[in-house]
Amino acid sequence: MERVKQYLNQIETEITRRSFIGHPAELYDPLNYMMLLGGKRLRPLYLLLANEAVGGNPEEVMHAALAIEVFHNFTLMHDDIMDNAPKRRGQDSVYVRWGVPTAILSGDLMLVEAYKLICETETPKLKSVLALFSKTAAEVCEGQQLDMNFESQSAIDTNEYVEMIRLKTAVLLAAALKMGAMLGEADDTLAQGLYDYGIHIGIGFQLMDDILDIYGDEKMVGKRPGGDILSDKKTFLLLKTIELANSAQKEMLNQWLGKTTDEPDEKIAAIKSLMDDLQIRNIALEKSHFYFETADHILDGLDIAQDKKDLLRTYTLWLKARIS
Amino acid sequence: MERVKQYLNQIETEITRRSFIGHPAELYDPLNYMMLLGGKRLRPLYLLLANEAVGGNPEEVMHAALAIEVFHNFTLMHDDIMDNAPKRRGQDSVYVRWGVPTAILSGDLMLVEAYKLICETETPKLKSVLALFSKTAAEVCEGQQLDMNFESQSAIDTNEYVEMIRLKTAVLLAAALKMGAMLGEADDTLAQGLYDYGIHIGIGFQLMDDILDIYGDEKMVGKRPGGDILSDKKTFLLLKTIELANSAQKEMLNQWLGKTTDEPDEKIAAIKSLMDDLQIRNIALEKSHFYFETADHILDGLDIAQDKKDLLRTYTLWLKARIS
Repeated sequence: MERVKQYLNQIETEITRRSFIGHPAELYDPLNYMMLLGGKRLRPLYLLLANEAVGGNPEEVMHAALAIEVFHNFTLMHDDIMDNAPKRRGQDSVYVRWGVPTAILSGDLMLVEAYKLICETETPKLKSVLALFSKTAAEVCEGQQLDMNFESQSAIDTNEYVEMIRLKTAVLLAAALKMGAMLGEADDTLAQGLYDYGIHIGIGFQLMDDILDIYGDEKMVGKRPGGDILSDKKTFLLLKTIELANSAQKEMLNQWLGKTTDEPDEKIAAIKSLMDDLQIRNIALEKSHFYFETADHILDGLDIAQDKKDLLRTYTLWLKARIS
Repeated sequence: MERVKQYLNQIETEITRRSFIGHPAELYDPLNYMMLLGGKRLRPLYLLLANEAVGGNPEEVMHAALAIEVFHNFTLMHDDIMDNAPKRRGQDSVYVRWGVPTAILSGDLMLVEAYKLICETETPKLKSVLALFSKTAAEVCEGQQLDMNFESQSAIDTNEYVEMIRLKTAVLLAAALKMGAMLGEADDTLAQGLYDYGIHIGIGFQLMDDILDIYGDEKMVGKRPGGDILSDKKTFLLLKTIELANSAQKEMLNQWLGKTTDEPDEKIAAIKSLMDDLQIRNIALEKSHFYFETADHILDGLDIAQDKKDLLRTYTLWLKARIS
């Protein structure tokens, strides 16, 4: 993991070095605030690892790595407005601190800055890289809209949910890997293989996140468990619970869902107990493992040196351990 | 003006042909709604005219022309949220019809679609064209933020106002002209000359708009005059009024500004009468004419065939007549 730490340091250095300066400050400050709030930086890191894996020179693709991280933070800035989420990484969201209009506008600027960074990357494949980036950006918007649509839909099956998280979170991780490969002159098969790897670990990570929100250790996860239950968030776990509940259990669920409650602890305990009865944690864990195993299988089949595969695999395992 | 009408038809055809299709519909519908609300399409038209003027083939730059129009409509979609403007071209704004979250997200998608269209343009200068587009997009965001900042600032001088409208509206018109020139293989001097022409007519048009909001004919302009006065909008005319008012006039102004009123007609009449006393209409008209005359002078000096200059000049005069 020395290599990973080294890359993470380089990414942080690049983020600090490349502060976004312009006038008026009200527009640029939120952008820098957002970038410096921290985060695991896993998307730029996967881009660098994929680039190294195919024999590229990761030093030369730092702009593209940063572009992916800037884009990711742009989506967070706008999502926080749409989702009414007042906190981000323990700090005030941009719209809380600067107001909704500036959070919209500063996010727009951030998307433009991401494109600028992509265009600063020296590559004969700029057009293909931009096509991948734009396609991915549109898909991320589609995923967020699907997620918002789910709020007002009664029946959603778990396949629809997986398709939503594929778009909302996995495609960006996959695009980071593919972009790293393309910029390292990998052939199309290898680049697409790394993309598929990214899709599978991306979905796997999101399912782990869903499980942890309910079953995670407060000290490890850094927040009280059950937030998703309280907000009736239609995660894989809740959808599976609705699917498997018998009529008595459905009735019990309906007593809690869609209503505000003065008894948050009771609501969490009641729904969690129902999930326990239905073995939801195991079902979700199995689903998550399925995606990680498939990812592993995809990685095995790729035309990359064994030590590079090991590096990708080790980092993925390390990330998985950090969030589980 | 036959040529102009022909181009306008081609632009409308292209907008209709290129409807934005995707899933979920909630995300794509607002984009098509916005594009089909109409408008003068002056930005894509100037791009085509500039391209023709430098000897390009306007048929081949239709994607870039459309990109500029999509970008312009993206800014309108987000501006309407920021400015609390419930109507756009007489119809409900997107955020009124679909809600703020979807208006944010659909606007984001629109910005991505604009980049996609630029990238679909066949040109060896893609990198420079993208650099111009991104620089312009960032400047438009800066202009909108400055405009929002003005709302809470007491002293703004008219030079600051002109700088704000340069960023908020003129640079996009200028970039359209420059992009048309670049794509037609014009040299840098000519492309930059057309950019400067665009800056000057862009500022001129906005000053005309400001004048018309207060002094326009209701039947011609299509809305009741005085909207800017009612909302205390810091246009060139109000800022000049504040600058020139004596202390008694300032006191009168302060009785109306910054307050909601039950007597809108009285407020409009009172401030308009003060503007009349101070000759504000003439001062603003002179300022606007100064920009159009400078633009004309710039055009004269450019290395373009006389008939192409005449075409640009005629269209600008026609537009000016339409809004005055």
